[in-house]
Amino acid sequence: MEAITLVPVGVVRNSITQPVDDVWGGLISTIELDSNRFTPRAIAGLDTFSHVEIIYHFHSVPENDICLDARHPRGRSDWPEVGVFAQRVKNRPNRLGVTVCRLLKVSGLSIEVEGLDAIDGTPVLDIKPYMKEFAPSGVTQQPQWATELMSHYWNSAGRK
Amino acid sequence: MEAITLVPVGVVRNSITQPVDDVWGGLISTIELDSNRFTPRAIAGLDTFSHVEIIYHFHSVPENDICLDARHPRGRSDWPEVGVFAQRVKNRPNRLGVTVCRLLKVSGLSIEVEGLDAIDGTPVLDIKPYMKEFAPSGVTQQPQWATELMSHYWNSAGRK
Repeated sequence: MEAITLVPVGVVRNSITQPVDDVWGGLISTIELDSNRFTPRAIAGLDTFSHVEIIYHFHSVPENDICLDARHPRGRSDWPEVGVFAQRVKNRPNRLGVTVCRLLKVSGLSIEVEGLDAIDGTPVLDIKPYMKEFAPSGVTQQPQWATELMSHYWNSAGRK
Repeated sequence: MEAITLVPVGVVRNSITQPVDDVWGGLISTIELDSNRFTPRAIAGLDTFSHVEIIYHFHSVPENDICLDARHPRGRSDWPEVGVFAQRVKNRPNRLGVTVCRLLKVSGLSIEVEGLDAIDGTPVLDIKPYMKEFAPSGVTQQPQWATELMSHYWNSAGRK
């Protein structure tokens, strides 16, 4: 399949400097848009939304560590071995992350958000306003291992 | 900023062959994973989730048509002019789409979903299981124009 070239539109700035798990609750990040390409007009009106969806690149994952197969989430052998596309692990093909964050402030080329699970320096590939019509239709279901994993995910750094 | 090269992991197959608006409700699509790179192990266990999040590329948008600025959504001058990152228009930097779909069936390298707003032939860049802990925290808000636009988005082709 033909490769696709993307250019980051901005970068994440926050206090998390190393790839870690389960520290994202309440974390404040600033997304700095690329001032060579954008003016504040690119985010005009964004502040009329309460939440934004951020697409970013897990840039700290080495290409050699990408999984194309199945593995136990977090290496937990008591959880089932599932495919890389059946989990949200960062060692995934194309290394894309997607998270809906609370929007705190828009100022100039800066977007302040709460709950972005990306480390300092992460390249941002897109910013979309969250619209309720994009919520999942109907009731969602997920396996027990996912609920157990996620029960710690939004811990805060410093108060686990 | 440094460019990032992605390789599609699969392709969308459905009945919508031209870029159109407001036809996505109830649409059934099949995502065919690239058989040169993946085996069914890459999606093992995906069927234990009710919904999947699909990241894809708006490949039919010419590079020259990408907006870096602000515009009226759908060209509607009665709606405010807002930045490209304050709307979900396809003519956006990096041309990325993200949608949570209902998962219908997983079979071999095929994933059948309902409600994917992508046309036939669209390159798929990632597939993630939807976990309820990634829902927006708290109550969401959005401007009136977005609610008006979205009121037709999930119309079905043939029954507008």
